[in-house]
Amino acid sequence: MKLRRSSRLVDMTGFLLQHPHQIIPLSYFSDRYESAKSSISEDLTIIKENFESQGVGRLQTLAGAAGGVSYLPCMGCAEAGRLLANLKEQMTDAGRLLPGGYLYMTDILGRPELVNSIGRLIASVYADDQIDAIMTMETKGIPLAYAVASQCSVPVVVVRRSSKVTEGSTVSINYISGSSRRIQTMVLPRRSLKENARVLIVDDFMKAGGTMKGMMNLIKEFGATVAGMAVFVEKKDEQHKLVDHYVSLLKLSIVEQEDRLFMEEGNVVDYMRSREAEREHV
Amino acid sequence: MKLRRSSRLVDMTGFLLQHPHQIIPLSYFSDRYESAKSSISEDLTIIKENFESQGVGRLQTLAGAAGGVSYLPCMGCAEAGRLLANLKEQMTDAGRLLPGGYLYMTDILGRPELVNSIGRLIASVYADDQIDAIMTMETKGIPLAYAVASQCSVPVVVVRRSSKVTEGSTVSINYISGSSRRIQTMVLPRRSLKENARVLIVDDFMKAGGTMKGMMNLIKEFGATVAGMAVFVEKKDEQHKLVDHYVSLLKLSIVEQEDRLFMEEGNVVDYMRSREAEREHV
Repeated sequence: MKLRRSSRLVDMTGFLLQHPHQIIPLSYFSDRYESAKSSISEDLTIIKENFESQGVGRLQTLAGAAGGVSYLPCMGCAEAGRLLANLKEQMTDAGRLLPGGYLYMTDILGRPELVNSIGRLIASVYADDQIDAIMTMETKGIPLAYAVASQCSVPVVVVRRSSKVTEGSTVSINYISGSSRRIQTMVLPRRSLKENARVLIVDDFMKAGGTMKGMMNLIKEFGATVAGMAVFVEKKDEQHKLVDHYVSLLKLSIVEQEDRLFMEEGNVVDYMRSREAEREHV
Repeated sequence: MKLRRSSRLVDMTGFLLQHPHQIIPLSYFSDRYESAKSSISEDLTIIKENFESQGVGRLQTLAGAAGGVSYLPCMGCAEAGRLLANLKEQMTDAGRLLPGGYLYMTDILGRPELVNSIGRLIASVYADDQIDAIMTMETKGIPLAYAVASQCSVPVVVVRRSSKVTEGSTVSINYISGSSRRIQTMVLPRRSLKENARVLIVDDFMKAGGTMKGMMNLIKEFGATVAGMAVFVEKKDEQHKLVDHYVSLLKLSIVEQEDRLFMEEGNVVDYMRSREAEREHV
């Protein structure tokens, strides 16, 4: 249909937001709106300026036959800081302490607007990397993994603790839980991950990192590569972590004798700043 | 900041899409853009026309002191039909058949763009109802539940098969699986559902409906109400279903002797049409 600029802007904005990390040929829009490519380019300039000034993300224009425009969701460091401050405040509540050094966060992870914001933040961290899939361990990491995957337009693979009749043939490995030192099993359907895929691991909580380490081994078992690791809350303690090079949003300390907890920001904003600096040096 | 109409349209579109089912006072936008309310109203008219003609959803304007504008995601019957045809095609593959009359659909449910479309369809069905929470049973229903919840701006509560250390005190009930006739348990954290909440149940697969029936009983146990039930795939067979008044997207039939499966559309589009007719009669 033929549309005026104002209607094109509304429609293109919605379309781009719903198709992150996908290259949309300009001809798609010019056909859709029966408009000249020059008009579409002007529309995109307006959208680009708005997205960048509002911290929504970047619009990348790629020239050539395979060219087009691609929207990369990017949360700025300022917005990331506000989100972390908000999460930190909601999480700092002694009522959340559970036996065994765990934290009740089912309510936080049950709210889609928070989960989607966390997903947008994690996707921003890896916006310049090639990511082919998001991996998580059942159950609580699943919403976060989908929130990240929606912003990256890639599939999610969910690792399970035991094989299920609904998943066909599976690959399983044993791993040692870093905190309890127990041997556990993790299972992934054979057809869920391709060789050489670049996989971003996302999880809700990390103590010593045994589960993360297990997922890294599982990814190797499939001939795939770990592209990154991001965790919502990590437990800060003297215990040596089994993994490094991960990004965390929040760090939890517990004073068990006093039933008190402390939350501080993880390394995510520092990591974003260093990636930004790298980009500027290229 | 002061913005021109074109930039306002981009920004407002993004904002509305990210805040479905929330009443945004016009003053929020007029303050945000340092613009007169009359200009904001004109912007909203442009967005409304576009959303409605493109089948994105409705913009409802509420007058008065508590007034404002609210975006209700609504997929039209035509788009719903195309989505169902696409899903039906992808699901009709004998390779998906698993022992016990189950279906491999982990790949489909792993793709966020499909999951989000299914979520938008289910949210559209209940767009005019008051929904306070989405409930699902772990594990495979979780992504669908979040996709619906994101479009309704309400929290998700995940029912588990056993109580977890990370969830605090819980309420559990026993139920009888409709297909295997075994006694099973379902568990929900005590603080996860409020009395009188109106709950929409969402799940990925339904055989006889025992799990659905269990969730209905669990909702009653909390003094809450079932606002609706939606399932992605239901198994079509002679077996009597334990629940009614549910909506299904697809219906699966299996010819076990021949290792063949048939998929047909569920009742969702018919249900949408009847709701639409009701609305027009009011």
